[in-house]
Amino acid sequence: MTMSKRDTYTPDSLLAVAVRVFNERGYDGTSMEHLSRAAGISKSSIYHHVRGKEELLNRAVGRALDGLFGILDEPGAVDGRAVRRLEYVTRRTTEVLMAELPYVTLLLRVRGNTTTERWAMERRREFDQRVAELLKAAVADGDLRADVEVRLATRLLFGMINSIVEWYRPDTKGALDREQVADAVVRLAFDGLRTQAGA
Amino acid sequence: MTMSKRDTYTPDSLLAVAVRVFNERGYDGTSMEHLSRAAGISKSSIYHHVRGKEELLNRAVGRALDGLFGILDEPGAVDGRAVRRLEYVTRRTTEVLMAELPYVTLLLRVRGNTTTERWAMERRREFDQRVAELLKAAVADGDLRADVEVRLATRLLFGMINSIVEWYRPDTKGALDREQVADAVVRLAFDGLRTQAGA
Repeated sequence: MTMSKRDTYTPDSLLAVAVRVFNERGYDGTSMEHLSRAAGISKSSIYHHVRGKEELLNRAVGRALDGLFGILDEPGAVDGRAVRRLEYVTRRTTEVLMAELPYVTLLLRVRGNTTTERWAMERRREFDQRVAELLKAAVADGDLRADVEVRLATRLLFGMINSIVEWYRPDTKGALDREQVADAVVRLAFDGLRTQAGA
Repeated sequence: MTMSKRDTYTPDSLLAVAVRVFNERGYDGTSMEHLSRAAGISKSSIYHHVRGKEELLNRAVGRALDGLFGILDEPGAVDGRAVRRLEYVTRRTTEVLMAELPYVTLLLRVRGNTTTERWAMERRREFDQRVAELLKAAVADGDLRADVEVRLATRLLFGMINSIVEWYRPDTKGALDREQVADAVVRLAFDGLRTQAGA
C-alpha cells in the first residue's frame, strides 16, 4: 500500500498502462494485482474506473479496430480504381499500426479465450476480408497479378505489415520515420524489390 | 503414474512432443511436469534422455537453425548474381520454414531469458545479416531498388516470410502446397502485386 499514489488517471491514461502490461505479460498472464502495481494505485481505485480487466481489453482492442475500420471510410479507400484504393488502405493500415502501436500489437496477439478476444478476432477477420475483396477487384481490373491466389496474397500482405510491431520502436534514436516505413511497404507490396534491370 | 506408458521414445520423437508443448504453452510456461504428461512417461524417463528442458530447447532451435544456415551453403545461394542468390535464399527459407514448421515457429518466438534463447536470437540475427548483405550486393548491381533502405527491406521480407507460421497448417484439408506458397512469396517480394497495366 505504501506504493499507492493519488489516483489521477483518466480513462485513456489508465488504458495506456494496462495495454503496456498486457503486451508484456500477455492478457491471460495479467491479474488485477499486476495492473494495480503497474499503475501505482489500489485495485479498488481501478475498479472505480472499470469493471475488470476484460473491459480494459475491450477498450484497447476497440481503439485499434476503430483506427483500422476508420480507414475504410476515408475518401481514398472509397473513391477510384480498386488498385489505388488498395494502395491507399495498405499505406494507411501501416500508418495506423505505427500510430497506435501498443493497441494494434495487443489486437494482433489476442488468442480467443474470452468473449472479447473472440469478438476482436472476428473483427480482424472482417477487416482482412474487406481488404481481400479490394484485392480481388483489382485483379479483376487487370491491375494486380492473377497468378497468386487472393487469400494467399492478402495473408502475405498483412504478414508484411503486421510484422512491423515486432521491431518498430518510435522512441528509439535513429528510428525510421513513419512515412519512410509506409513508403517502403507500399513499394515492396505493389512493385517488389526488383528494378527493371534485375528482371 | 497410471498414465505412464513404456518409454519407446527416440531423441527425435521426444523432441517433437516437447516442441509441441513449448509452442502451446510458451517455453517459460512449460515445466518438466507438463512435458512428462504430454509424453505419457515419467519425469525420470525424460531425464534419461536429456538433462532438462533447456537441452530440448537447444536441440529444437538448433534443428531450425541448421535448416536455415544449410541454405546458405547450397549452390543456388553461392553461385551467380546476387539477385538470383537472394531469390534462391528467399524461396528456400520459405520452404524450410514450412518443412520444419514447429521448430522454426519455436525459434521465432524465443525471447532471450536463458543462455540458449540468447544464443538462438544471436544466430537468427546472423542469418538475417547474411541475407541483408546479399540484398545490399543486389542493390549495388542495380538489380534491386535503391529507394528502400536495406535493413528495412530485409525486415519486411522476413516479416512476410515469417508470418507464414501464423496460418500455415500442412495437415488441413485444402491446404496450399509448399511450392504454391514459396512461389507466391518470391513473386510478391521481387515483383510485387502489380501487373504492368496497373502501374
